Amino acid sequence: MPGPLLVQPDPSDPRLTRRVSGLDHTGARIEASVTVERPLTLYLNGQEIVTMMTILDRPEELALGYLLNQGMLRRDDAVTGIDYDDDLQVVVVRTARRTDYEAKLKKKTLTSGCAQGTAFGDLLEDFGERTLPPAALRTSWLYGLLKAINTLPTLYLEAGAIHGCALCKADAPLVYMEDVGRHNAVDKIAGWMFRTGCDPADKIFYTTGRLTSEMVIKTVRMGIPILISRSGFTAWGVELAREVGLTLIGRCKGKRFVALAGEERIVFDADLAAVGEENPKHWRKNGRDA
Amino acid sequence: MPGPLLVQPDPSDPRLTRRVSGLDHTGARIEASVTVERPLTLYLNGQEIVTMMTILDRPEELALGYLLNQGMLRRDDAVTGIDYDDDLQVVVVRTARRTDYEAKLKKKTLTSGCAQGTAFGDLLEDFGERTLPPAALRTSWLYGLLKAINTLPTLYLEAGAIHGCALCKADAPLVYMEDVGRHNAVDKIAGWMFRTGCDPADKIFYTTGRLTSEMVIKTVRMGIPILISRSGFTAWGVELAREVGLTLIGRCKGKRFVALAGEERIVFDADLAAVGEENPKHWRKNGRDA
Repeated sequence: MPGPLLVQPDPSDPRLTRRVSGLDHTGARIEASVTVERPLTLYLNGQEIVTMMTILDRPEELALGYLLNQGMLRRDDAVTGIDYDDDLQVVVVRTARRTDYEAKLKKKTLTSGCAQGTAFGDLLEDFGERTLPPAALRTSWLYGLLKAINTLPTLYLEAGAIHGCALCKADAPLVYMEDVGRHNAVDKIAGWMFRTGCDPADKIFYTTGRLTSEMVIKTVRMGIPILISRSGFTAWGVELAREVGLTLIGRCKGKRFVALAGEERIVFDADLAAVGEENPKHWRKNGRDA
Repeated sequence: MPGPLLVQPDPSDPRLTRRVSGLDHTGARIEASVTVERPLTLYLNGQEIVTMMTILDRPEELALGYLLNQGMLRRDDAVTGIDYDDDLQVVVVRTARRTDYEAKLKKKTLTSGCAQGTAFGDLLEDFGERTLPPAALRTSWLYGLLKAINTLPTLYLEAGAIHGCALCKADAPLVYMEDVGRHNAVDKIAGWMFRTGCDPADKIFYTTGRLTSEMVIKTVRMGIPILISRSGFTAWGVELAREVGLTLIGRCKGKRFVALAGEERIVFDADLAAVGEENPKHWRKNGRDA
């Protein structure tokens, strides 16, 4: 059992779920827990950027991460303030640099990511220029990570309709975030990394969601060289990962996985005979849109 | 085994998947099929609306359904042309009515739906005014539907990273569409219904995805009184369904389900003893983001 992470979900937080009554398959009256989604409107300086549906557990980090992953906030920007109003459900990010993304906001691409399935401006803006640091992924770490992630507390088992992402180092998850939108979870981790000055070079990113073009682009923007999912790939996701040398590992279940880009970083040091098959409860917990 | 539907996926279509090489968990070189996602840019008359990532199997119906579900195309609009250019991957929808959604396009909400997780303008525009027809859902139909859907050909088993939606009547699926984005699949069905003049009043909608606010709003826009998923609910999805009396059934697995809105439409006529538990292969096939 891993110890507590730097950040992990609190399924007992009453703000994140609601009890509602209904009928079950026998016609009996039952009570069910459902995940709460709330609108959060994001401003960058004077400009309204977007409204996101989120569980609203970490509005400041979601705002920062969203702006970073949309290329509207730069790593070297001085953030002079982040004001969150819980009544209005509005978050305002202020920067020393004057910003205006009117033109960028006009161009919209709906990607196949969950929730924030939208990139403003050119999705591939300066993507080709990105480079990722050399790194290694030991398969012994990979199996250790999956095991650790599977034992973390999760809103999914409480109420479902949740995606999760983990920022990891070697065989240990450091930060695990969940949201109704998979991309909210990614962006909250990006915001946490920006706030804490976390070095991406030796990190590994794990997502419950699919390895789509947008997921690859966000991981590369975050500067993380290794991306792991138990879900599947899209062809464009694989293409982009190969273009910048991101290590892309998917269909990760039990001892099985498939690596379709950046395979050279993988060190096959695990004793597969010692890796157990997965408990279906965990298998269920991670690769789904439920 | 159900006969062929009016529309169903063709997993053998070479345009929908690509073979790529990589390594498996033993370090052996393997070939894997991955789902193709392609950008499709949509114009309404002179105006660029959006670019979507899609498997691009039915661009015309995706375009129509997207515009309908965004409230940019009205049921009574005369569509004077739909031109799709396969080289440019651009689709232009022309209407007799002059349209200008500049203002609407400025306001963006990122919802927790997959892919097209974006609604322009007011997400709830005239939502309250909608009413749904009376209808009945026999649980015997429900179990028949799940069984039929589970035996349909699917890109998911071929390449993963796919969501599916079915338009059904009584115990029979009529149309089954898949896409990298769950909302593309929904919109393609909406477009098909518009084109064929399909009456929504006696239909049942099935999705592999979550029952979020956006999914509920789209089903209501389509005029379909019953929405079924094997995935989970969000609190706002339940709230909106109750507001307009949509029958909302989720966590539908084997003989189990939970109904959290519009329960009065459900007729519990199935012999539960005769309903088998599900084959995990099918269970896996439908409630996931893989």
